[in-house]
Amino acid sequence: MPGNSFGQIFTLSTFGESHGKAIGGIIDGCPAGLRIDESFIQHQLDRRRPGQSDISTQRKEKDRVELLSGIFEGKTLGTPIGFIIRNKDQRPADYDSLKDKFRPSHADLTYALKYGHRDHRGGGRASARETACRVVGGSIAMQLLALNGIAIRAWVSQVGSVKTPENFIPEDHEDIDSNPVRCPHRETADAMIAAIKHLATDGDTLGGEITCLIQHYPPGVGEPVFDKLEADLAKAMLSINAAKGFEIGLGFKGISMPGSLYRDHFVFENGEIKTKTNHDGGINGGISNGMDILFRVAFKPVSTSRYEPDVMDKQGHESRMEKAGRHDPCVVPRAVPIVESMAALVLADHWLRMRTSKI
Amino acid sequence: MPGNSFGQIFTLSTFGESHGKAIGGIIDGCPAGLRIDESFIQHQLDRRRPGQSDISTQRKEKDRVELLSGIFEGKTLGTPIGFIIRNKDQRPADYDSLKDKFRPSHADLTYALKYGHRDHRGGGRASARETACRVVGGSIAMQLLALNGIAIRAWVSQVGSVKTPENFIPEDHEDIDSNPVRCPHRETADAMIAAIKHLATDGDTLGGEITCLIQHYPPGVGEPVFDKLEADLAKAMLSINAAKGFEIGLGFKGISMPGSLYRDHFVFENGEIKTKTNHDGGINGGISNGMDILFRVAFKPVSTSRYEPDVMDKQGHESRMEKAGRHDPCVVPRAVPIVESMAALVLADHWLRMRTSKI
Amino acid sequence: MPGNSFGQIFTLSTFGESHGKAIGGIIDGCPAGLRIDESFIQHQLDRRRPGQSDISTQRKEKDRVELLSGIFEGKTLGTPIGFIIRNKDQRPADYDSLKDKFRPSHADLTYALKYGHRDHRGGGRASARETACRVVGGSIAMQLLALNGIAIRAWVSQVGSVKTPENFIPEDHEDIDSNPVRCPHRETADAMIAAIKHLATDGDTLGGEITCLIQHYPPGVGEPVFDKLEADLAKAMLSINAAKGFEIGLGFKGISMPGSLYRDHFVFENGEIKTKTNHDGGINGGISNGMDILFRVAFKPVSTSRYEPDVMDKQGHESRMEKAGRHDPCVVPRAVPIVESMAALVLADHWLRMRTSKI
Amino acid sequence: MPGNSFGQIFTLSTFGESHGKAIGGIIDGCPAGLRIDESFIQHQLDRRRPGQSDISTQRKEKDRVELLSGIFEGKTLGTPIGFIIRNKDQRPADYDSLKDKFRPSHADLTYALKYGHRDHRGGGRASARETACRVVGGSIAMQLLALNGIAIRAWVSQVGSVKTPENFIPEDHEDIDSNPVRCPHRETADAMIAAIKHLATDGDTLGGEITCLIQHYPPGVGEPVFDKLEADLAKAMLSINAAKGFEIGLGFKGISMPGSLYRDHFVFENGEIKTKTNHDGGINGGISNGMDILFRVAFKPVSTSRYEPDVMDKQGHESRMEKAGRHDPCVVPRAVPIVESMAALVLADHWLRMRTSKI
Repeated sequence: MPGNSFGQIFTLSTFGESHGKAIGGIIDGCPAGLRIDESFIQHQLDRRRPGQSDISTQRKEKDRVELLSGIFEGKTLGTPIGFIIRNKDQRPADYDSLKDKFRPSHADLTYALKYGHRDHRGGGRASARETACRVVGGSIAMQLLALNGIAIRAWVSQVGSVKTPENFIPEDHEDIDSNPVRCPHRETADAMIAAIKHLATDGDTLGGEITCLIQHYPPGVGEPVFDKLEADLAKAMLSINAAKGFEIGLGFKGISMPGSLYRDHFVFENGEIKTKTNHDGGINGGISNGMDILFRVAFKPVSTSRYEPDVMDKQGHESRMEKAGRHDPCVVPRAVPIVESMAALVLADHWLRMRTSKI
Repeated sequence: MPGNSFGQIFTLSTFGESHGKAIGGIIDGCPAGLRIDESFIQHQLDRRRPGQSDISTQRKEKDRVELLSGIFEGKTLGTPIGFIIRNKDQRPADYDSLKDKFRPSHADLTYALKYGHRDHRGGGRASARETACRVVGGSIAMQLLALNGIAIRAWVSQVGSVKTPENFIPEDHEDIDSNPVRCPHRETADAMIAAIKHLATDGDTLGGEITCLIQHYPPGVGEPVFDKLEADLAKAMLSINAAKGFEIGLGFKGISMPGSLYRDHFVFENGEIKTKTNHDGGINGGISNGMDILFRVAFKPVSTSRYEPDVMDKQGHESRMEKAGRHDPCVVPRAVPIVESMAALVLADHWLRMRTSKI
Repeated sequence: MPGNSFGQIFTLSTFGESHGKAIGGIIDGCPAGLRIDESFIQHQLDRRRPGQSDISTQRKEKDRVELLSGIFEGKTLGTPIGFIIRNKDQRPADYDSLKDKFRPSHADLTYALKYGHRDHRGGGRASARETACRVVGGSIAMQLLALNGIAIRAWVSQVGSVKTPENFIPEDHEDIDSNPVRCPHRETADAMIAAIKHLATDGDTLGGEITCLIQHYPPGVGEPVFDKLEADLAKAMLSINAAKGFEIGLGFKGISMPGSLYRDHFVFENGEIKTKTNHDGGINGGISNGMDILFRVAFKPVSTSRYEPDVMDKQGHESRMEKAGRHDPCVVPRAVPIVESMAALVLADHWLRMRTSKI
Repeated sequence: MPGNSFGQIFTLSTFGESHGKAIGGIIDGCPAGLRIDESFIQHQLDRRRPGQSDISTQRKEKDRVELLSGIFEGKTLGTPIGFIIRNKDQRPADYDSLKDKFRPSHADLTYALKYGHRDHRGGGRASARETACRVVGGSIAMQLLALNGIAIRAWVSQVGSVKTPENFIPEDHEDIDSNPVRCPHRETADAMIAAIKHLATDGDTLGGEITCLIQHYPPGVGEPVFDKLEADLAKAMLSINAAKGFEIGLGFKGISMPGSLYRDHFVFENGEIKTKTNHDGGINGGISNGMDILFRVAFKPVSTSRYEPDVMDKQGHESRMEKAGRHDPCVVPRAVPIVESMAALVLADHWLRMRTSKI
């Protein structure tokens, strides 16, 4: 399969260029009988869309999803759920000057090299607009998981050099959306917003880190060897635009700890084996162990420039974009529902795959 | 497909438990006409196997691979390449005491929960012994890539708290194997060895980091959206036993850099667009840009204990393993050919997928 | 992947219920740079749609396809081509009486058993309306093949007991659409039409056979063992609603011929090896041999009844449908573009897969 | 995936050339906890192997399978089951004269065209010897199905022009193996044997038809649209060497029956909806309906010649093979366990896929 499909049983396939007629997709493999709350899908889309606050871009898409099939009398049929989101705010003329020019650290050049023919308007297929479709798919996966008591929440744990305190986990998930950076630690959030605004005045940008927590995922889910749960999560996260790193549990920090301290000692609670610490982040050997799953994703800053030439054409001529396309000073807060969605797709898929493990 | 297969066109499927009759696999999708150097496969297997030095385990498998099909008169047929590696050093009796016991931070418990029935001997399917099969597959992928001028080399860049200097890249790949930790920076290597030996006397272990460099990979290779090149690399790496993190280019370090500094400025060289820096690590939007591909993988230390109880049974009883199974004080040097192999599988697969991008 | 996707590289995924908001799909893996003639897609859709003549149903869908992505300035981008066809002629009230009733030899009961929850209106997902999406995908595959000189044409070779003469192949493809049964043999076509009309007066139906001919398919295309070209064609054909049989070359008739007569003797023409006869239908061992590919598909008659009770509910009560849903007296002529489309999907997919066979 | 793997959840991948070191494969996705009877696997292999009687070839392979993994203490682990069958009776010298020559109606030429490089000995990968691996996989699938009460039996229903009586179904499955043609209808079997022997004296061959019956397959299993149960069965059957046709239920014969007679009327028995007739062969809309599944497969005769030149080289020179390779006068009886095995792979796979249909 080409690279526009994700998952083995619960699958999402997407289509669409940033400035074409529509984006959309197909969610297939969702079991029959699941009651769908469309307002939750729209809520997640609203969390992702541009123009939410003065620290995100001013492109005002409504991102109104239309579900076309697979749902009848409010419940899934087990058949594919097709959906589209019309592209309304098309200003293709903004991009005419970019037709034969490439922005550095973007996919303009690589798409041209791969395909020979590309839609240069707003990044085309490479635009983060495509992730709206992932949010639709992920929002349905989250409802399947929620029915089984599984909760997924992500938040911004770092922007530029500003980080939440070590090992910080929000007590109340409601705090996440209490501020525009989606950092549930109030003081850190304030510092993040200040840092973004400071750089944004110069047209500059910041990257960040998102932490994701999955609670009540049942033990014994995941596949051996190549499709380890953490491997599929890593792929899911690195497939998000601007993602450059992934770590689970202690991740890179665990390297400098001796094995006798690192290991998660067993404790016996209510007839079940749990662990005292959770350095492994809830997964052993690719399979969930019943502890919280915890991972982090690094996002690079959107490439930008202040005064220098910022595009190049095939002949090597540099120039400066007049209309630069609209981008966020920090995309990371908008990536929170995308991280949740991709995690949900992985976890729903493996949760269904688990059903065939035993006779 | 269950989780024991990897790749879309150039694929590897593996089988085998640590203490069963044999491990093995099938490499499918390797194009016809490739001359195979079997000694290179064996060389990579030898780099992976236990018992290479006094800092690795003393289990002495010869890991002799037998290629059973798909090669005729020294060249690939285009048909599947089946292979097996017999398990010779089976001491199942060593593991009798572990039959109903679980080691913390291992996959003993999670496999039992998933499957209900498990081979407790030496980790069974979850043992790192399985990675020998990946080395066989990867060694063939490396030969396909090498024929096209593409080179993959990995080395150990951190053990415990000991790191190579920032941005260190070895000038001579031969230096990698010049010492048992496979760190091509001499002084760092010495410090790593000292650190491992120091902890090993107490039966303790260390994790580490491997850096992987791919040179001369053609631009325009990779898929959009979900199967981005970096996403498939992330999955490949996180599927390796004990891997807990992945980052490409600047990775997590790029978070704290403003976008105007982060971005890789274009330069025009010999009629081609290159970049002055390579913060993105050779990939934009999931597709290679012609610069070196550079990524890092974090490995946790093997779980161990000194004096405390170290296994638990289903009833919650703790005890101490008499014969602990043999493990390395630091597994990371042996993981170097595994990282190379998994990278090669991803890169060969995408290199073939590229052939269908244009009419 | 669930069962709504087809193909490995050139893929089609579809969604949609007969009486939902829309049907549609995604064509992925079509190489970049292919000029798309939308009028050809519409032409094929028109050949498939109901209401074309007095021997097909009177449901009047316009079946107007909207291509939403993947095409820019008239040429494919290499990215997914999303499309939808709105369901306009929805008369769901017609189906209210069928909500808890099952029609024999339809999929009403089996969908209910599989999913527990179903859209009873007009067959829902099981309706042949879904095949319109196949025609969209197939029409694009046909254009990719046509660019490479490959032609696919199908026609009706049998209706009820009326057959074309043995070994009949139309000289002029234009003859196929010269009559409403799409049989290019004039006398046979007249007899077929008479047979259909005769039974239709009583509300009865007839099945038929479609023969499909592929010309100029290059030799050396197809995969060994499981994905043989004829195996994928067989799957493609049996996946069409009402298809009950497939044969290639002589098919079932070849059974009664001794091997010395059956075999296709080699002849040497213009430096190429051809065969004198073509009993094998253009494929040996799953791989095309350069001769015409020729196969036949059997379609059962649509189930119907005249006076008897014709539906049953879960409690075993029989009754007679008042409004029976609209169906054709003979669906086979409308299946001609569907057969062509499914053949095109298989042949385009394998044609692309071929590109990775050799180094 | 290349064409050497079959199935979505319960999968079989195979490798091996006819005269290489070994053939073998991997069965993946078999659920954990299934008790495996190895003697049944060997029994089915013995039914497939050459040299069983004077109407099959005299190549005497023992076809002894060695199971290498995935089974522990007699039960499946849920991990891949690797296996090999050594090629013992290698007489490669027999084939030296065929190195640059192609046999008509074989895959010699098409493999050469596809791959450029081929193993000419005994058909290489295209040899029916590969089907031994399918029998291993199928025999395990049959045990999974048998545990759930599902029975699969196939028999020879036609050889040349000799057929069993219409609608014949054996009452006693034991009759199938009571004679070397595996036709459970005694008089027909005698006539088949006579027909084969008659032609064999001249070195000629006969094709045949196999009928396969699946009993007690639960209703509600199968996928919509492309992966219909009958579509996957058709693919499975057409992937068998020499198979040229497939039909389910009435198949091609149903074409000439009006829809009012064809349709399977519902009857209500013991609280379940059954059908009076079974013209559809147990499947509606791709999903099983609880009735017996019944299909037929057509096999062409092995190509042979009596006195004429029977091979051609690339330059168009014809010659006569001195040692012709050994082939059966009628391969069909040996294909019976292969048909059963491929059916079992499809049915086990869909039976597992069914587990994810509902919430």
